[in-house]
Amino acid sequence: MNEVYLAGVGMTAFGVHAERTLVDLAGEAAGLALADAGLEPGRVDMGFFASATAAPLFKDVTVGQNVFWSVGINQIPIFNLENACTSGSAAFYLACNAIAAGQARAVLVVGGEKMCVPEAGLLNSGATELDTQLGLVTPASFAMRAVRHMAEFGTTAEQMAAVAVKNREHASFNPMAQFRKPTNVAEVLGSPMIADPLTRLQCCPIADGAAAVLLCAKEAVPSLDRCLRVRAWAYGTGDYANPQDMARWGTDYRVCASAYALAGMQPADLDLIECHDAFTIGEILHYEALGLCAPGEGGKLAASGDTALGGRIPVNVSGGLLSRGHPPGATGLAQVWELATQLRNEAGERQVAGAGTGLAHCMGGDKDGDAKSCTAIIITN
Amino acid sequence: MNEVYLAGVGMTAFGVHAERTLVDLAGEAAGLALADAGLEPGRVDMGFFASATAAPLFKDVTVGQNVFWSVGINQIPIFNLENACTSGSAAFYLACNAIAAGQARAVLVVGGEKMCVPEAGLLNSGATELDTQLGLVTPASFAMRAVRHMAEFGTTAEQMAAVAVKNREHASFNPMAQFRKPTNVAEVLGSPMIADPLTRLQCCPIADGAAAVLLCAKEAVPSLDRCLRVRAWAYGTGDYANPQDMARWGTDYRVCASAYALAGMQPADLDLIECHDAFTIGEILHYEALGLCAPGEGGKLAASGDTALGGRIPVNVSGGLLSRGHPPGATGLAQVWELATQLRNEAGERQVAGAGTGLAHCMGGDKDGDAKSCTAIIITN
Repeated sequence: MNEVYLAGVGMTAFGVHAERTLVDLAGEAAGLALADAGLEPGRVDMGFFASATAAPLFKDVTVGQNVFWSVGINQIPIFNLENACTSGSAAFYLACNAIAAGQARAVLVVGGEKMCVPEAGLLNSGATELDTQLGLVTPASFAMRAVRHMAEFGTTAEQMAAVAVKNREHASFNPMAQFRKPTNVAEVLGSPMIADPLTRLQCCPIADGAAAVLLCAKEAVPSLDRCLRVRAWAYGTGDYANPQDMARWGTDYRVCASAYALAGMQPADLDLIECHDAFTIGEILHYEALGLCAPGEGGKLAASGDTALGGRIPVNVSGGLLSRGHPPGATGLAQVWELATQLRNEAGERQVAGAGTGLAHCMGGDKDGDAKSCTAIIITN
Repeated sequence: MNEVYLAGVGMTAFGVHAERTLVDLAGEAAGLALADAGLEPGRVDMGFFASATAAPLFKDVTVGQNVFWSVGINQIPIFNLENACTSGSAAFYLACNAIAAGQARAVLVVGGEKMCVPEAGLLNSGATELDTQLGLVTPASFAMRAVRHMAEFGTTAEQMAAVAVKNREHASFNPMAQFRKPTNVAEVLGSPMIADPLTRLQCCPIADGAAAVLLCAKEAVPSLDRCLRVRAWAYGTGDYANPQDMARWGTDYRVCASAYALAGMQPADLDLIECHDAFTIGEILHYEALGLCAPGEGGKLAASGDTALGGRIPVNVSGGLLSRGHPPGATGLAQVWELATQLRNEAGERQVAGAGTGLAHCMGGDKDGDAKSCTAIIITN
């Protein structure tokens, strides 16, 4: 099996890009990743484009071909992938597989969305699904998890709000982030209620934006100087056979354990984590699945400061989905962008001192009480 | 590299399934493929779901997870793929890659659409693209090709109509086909004009339907008795750098040549072909790219009878897209279903005598005068 090198990353700022098209945004990210690596476009021999909303919002299909052409890449196999919030990271997974197998030498993975448009409504994992039609849209399903975690473990509203405050503080140092003005627990809890107990500042925003990563086999890497190594890529889908536990996703535990096993690492080996804080309760549940604390202790960990910049294990120093913004096709790749920036010691004010190993974690969709997908990626410098 | 075995196939009849959901249709095809192979659902370790219209028509995402769960498969990596008319065959390509690399032992590829609904409009490769908005919808771009081929090579309307007549005749023997009543050249040419010179019976219909194939490594095949071998899988996207030639797609020629090279075969080694006859002119152009005749001679070949059942090289004995129907996510897999049925000598009235080697060919999307994607798959018994 070939080693997988992360040779380049690129992203646009996340936010509202009213005057730009999805292809334009995604093309910018793709071009930046190629330039970052110093690779000629014609050397890319496989491509993935990830987007969750291009088709449902705009009836646009085969967008990836247009994106790759916009940066001068043609003829090669290109795959358009959709996997809700793990669209980008699931594409990353297939790209790693292709490099590992020697089926490609330089794979460009691009993800993007243009969501800040009048057509956008509530995002969910399927407008035709019965539970969605009955009202179990995504914020509602996360609210149910929050209520269950509060009841089972005594997690408090303030502990959940602490996640939003921390990630906003981190975002204040990140020029790529959508929301950068610091907030506080009172403001988070006082923002409009979306799905009790989740207030608006505990729910990630939609965003326009794109991100891209270039993965290479060693012989295709233009320069090893700034190259990083992908040590593990794990992906699993829901275990619908046992969907009743609202205080933990079995899928989350399985995939995180798989990533650690593949990398031969433990939670203590990580220097930073980007995780899927689509809602504040999500980050708390992911702490537990990632083994940062015992099950049930996630709320306390959130409030402890241990997961803040400068703490024991900083989580979402980019600002996370909550403050960097969440264009799903780009999110998983923007997490990798953040890890790369940190592991190269180029993160400026939000630099995690001595960062050598990072984990990126995504989760997407929701059905019958389990997540529909989960990914975990471990990268080292 | 591991050999790739085609262990099972399944499909629904194509047509109007007003009372059934997409998940229901796709689940039926998936279950049939598993039953055909005799494989327990729990043995499948990777899954692909291909659909071009689930998201644009219904805002449904991560449909694949629902499909796989409906047949008792969970936890495994599942990828939702969209690639216009090559959605199913591009997923097939990735599945073969995974088996070849030893990254999976049993991969189920399912594709499906539910298109016969009021929401369906003209299908094209992107509602936001300028050329689409200016009127270059898919039938128009194929009509331009037809006009060019007529002007350059003397191809006639009657030769194009012969493709529709032949494929309808084939479909009359296929219980899975959407349109089974034989037709004739006068009726084809007399049907309503869609985009001059293409009349309605020269344009494939939309359809509801699903198809599935199970690909395995040798050690995962339940029984080798009815197993087939995948000898080549090729996939390429458009060469937008040279898009001016309306009488041939460079992409088509490249991908077909690649498939022959990978299999170590030539056109004369094939016993039958399923090709992408989305429009009659398409089949004629594909004859030329596939090397069945010299460039420019495709019209004459269509009218010669050589590509009919009983002829030198039967093409689209299933009825093709024109008569079997064309739910894009399913089409590439339905072509493989037809090859499997023929290579196992189970095709009844439409059996190609002594069929040992078949090729399945798809093409999807259209931009700036080139196809956005093309696939070719060669299978032997």
